[in-house]
Amino acid sequence: MQLQFHLVPAVLRKNIAAIEGYSPGEQPQNGGFIKLNTNENPYPPSPRVLAALRKAADRSLRLYPDPLAEKLRSLAAITYGIGPENVLAGNGSDELLSILARCFVCKGDQVVYPVPTYTLYDTLIGIQEGEKVTISYPVDFSLPEGLYSQAGAMTILCNPNSPSGTLASLEQIERLAQCVSGVLVVDEAYIDFADGFGNSALPLVKRYSNLVVLRSFSKSFSLAGMRIGLAFAAEELINGMIKVKDSYNLSRLSLVSALAALQDLPWMIRNVGKIQKTRKRLTRMLKKIGFSVYPSQANFVMVRRRGDNLSGLYQELRRRGILVRYFGVRGLEDALRITVGTPQEIKTLLSEMAAVLEVT
Amino acid sequence: MQLQFHLVPAVLRKNIAAIEGYSPGEQPQNGGFIKLNTNENPYPPSPRVLAALRKAADRSLRLYPDPLAEKLRSLAAITYGIGPENVLAGNGSDELLSILARCFVCKGDQVVYPVPTYTLYDTLIGIQEGEKVTISYPVDFSLPEGLYSQAGAMTILCNPNSPSGTLASLEQIERLAQCVSGVLVVDEAYIDFADGFGNSALPLVKRYSNLVVLRSFSKSFSLAGMRIGLAFAAEELINGMIKVKDSYNLSRLSLVSALAALQDLPWMIRNVGKIQKTRKRLTRMLKKIGFSVYPSQANFVMVRRRGDNLSGLYQELRRRGILVRYFGVRGLEDALRITVGTPQEIKTLLSEMAAVLEVT
Repeated sequence: MQLQFHLVPAVLRKNIAAIEGYSPGEQPQNGGFIKLNTNENPYPPSPRVLAALRKAADRSLRLYPDPLAEKLRSLAAITYGIGPENVLAGNGSDELLSILARCFVCKGDQVVYPVPTYTLYDTLIGIQEGEKVTISYPVDFSLPEGLYSQAGAMTILCNPNSPSGTLASLEQIERLAQCVSGVLVVDEAYIDFADGFGNSALPLVKRYSNLVVLRSFSKSFSLAGMRIGLAFAAEELINGMIKVKDSYNLSRLSLVSALAALQDLPWMIRNVGKIQKTRKRLTRMLKKIGFSVYPSQANFVMVRRRGDNLSGLYQELRRRGILVRYFGVRGLEDALRITVGTPQEIKTLLSEMAAVLEVT
Repeated sequence: MQLQFHLVPAVLRKNIAAIEGYSPGEQPQNGGFIKLNTNENPYPPSPRVLAALRKAADRSLRLYPDPLAEKLRSLAAITYGIGPENVLAGNGSDELLSILARCFVCKGDQVVYPVPTYTLYDTLIGIQEGEKVTISYPVDFSLPEGLYSQAGAMTILCNPNSPSGTLASLEQIERLAQCVSGVLVVDEAYIDFADGFGNSALPLVKRYSNLVVLRSFSKSFSLAGMRIGLAFAAEELINGMIKVKDSYNLSRLSLVSALAALQDLPWMIRNVGKIQKTRKRLTRMLKKIGFSVYPSQANFVMVRRRGDNLSGLYQELRRRGILVRYFGVRGLEDALRITVGTPQEIKTLLSEMAAVLEVT
């Protein structure tokens, strides 16, 4: 052990020292689990994506990627019926959320969102020294009326919401866009799993210059491993975000996989259809064994047994090789979030749950 | 055209609206250029990297990557003789620089660095509303004495420096680590190209708890397209940085390529050797045709013709299919930065330069 010459460590900003970082769900790297804890798609990415990646793994990786991902912007613009100048690609929608916080949240600025929701928002606001203004969802997870009368620099709505899986209507989002004073971020990571069409706030981007809609390739496109997200907003906002993002924020292969995924929408839509079907069955069966289940429009369901702490059930399932998400925070001790897996995975889950519940 | 209901656009933070974003060098996506403008390696990545990528392009891409890149941390720790707890992987060293700014720079905090250097530092400080304290390099690009007496929250040294290619000694860096009051960031993106060994500040990380050393896979490992950087620092600093980084900041395939690259160091070292040889020849030849050339320890050289604006030469080379970097900022109008390409590319460059200079 060598002498530590410099005994005073460099000092982290106080707010960084104080915050708890975001804790992602467990990601066992060695397999062996039925993994229903982080809302990954149980079906593989499109074979076209994998073929395109294998083809692109060549000497061109020595070169920087396109900093603005122009090909992806153009294809996304066509796919989603918007202008390329209204699209920005991110290293997952997490990066886009972080960019948005840096673009819009000064020290002391209020950021408003209904809770419980994606807890990364807390971390990002902490990094910016913003002020969280959280408004509790009622028991049925309908949109709290109090949300409309806030004056935050930023308002965030996760829609469908995680962990509840519940969906706010397009009318509600439009009213929010009209009422809020700052930027409205609608995080649509799960929107492709909503029943029917017409739930996305994307068409509103053309009409509301304070609206940012985020999409993710992690869930519906089965590409959590490649880190791709898209932001849609007015050109002025996109140009501000470009200043803040890292120059080369997506690797060449992430760009290749995003392009190929958008070129095979039927693959994504087919998998979404299977998941919707399984979600329906899972919801029914969970109710049958005594849980309250929220009407999910995402690729997961939130179950509750009011008043019961479900930590034991979570642990017991884990011991049996099934990972679900237990949050263990105040107000959610009686809840689990369960990703909709394959029919076989769900069958195993249900039979293990039944076995555990019989025992306890 | 639909009515724009929300007429007041959401307001970007003033500092974001005010900054100029970083302008990366031109990245033509369609080839056709001899590309000597952004310091990419002219040789391809290791065949082992490409093979590993092709193998990894499978259904597992539906799953999130390891948030902490533990395998990469472990292998990097062994490779560089440090503990895994002292290593953090980033989406390029650009992301690591951005994380460091967010960890250490509050509004109004001073960030000190000698200039001209990597202009991304300016952008990152602007985003944090920090205060730039730039100290001009003397004409020979030796480390300015004034650097040692500053009291910034952060001091940054790009070493070898870009665009000059010049190298500060290990003794100078150690003295800096002892003298500066805040964190010292040594950006070693180009260090593998320095002659001989023993130039890296990495061994100092064990002794100076205020030192962060950054490495990049973009240059020496020929992986600019995959976005991989490493930070080395005391565990307390790394843990602070982990709180700020995006949870899943590197894709599965970026992790795979970094691991495979570290498993084939001889490939990197061989390419570095070739580039050093070409650099020597390029330096000699450029002097021969009348340029001042800084003694480069990187994979580029900076040439000058004092008092001459080289914009015309840059443009003329571009017209002839050769991209070099012209900064066009005050004090660098008489300079070009030229990446060390293959011997053939350099031959073409030199003959085109000679032709242009004859004409003008």
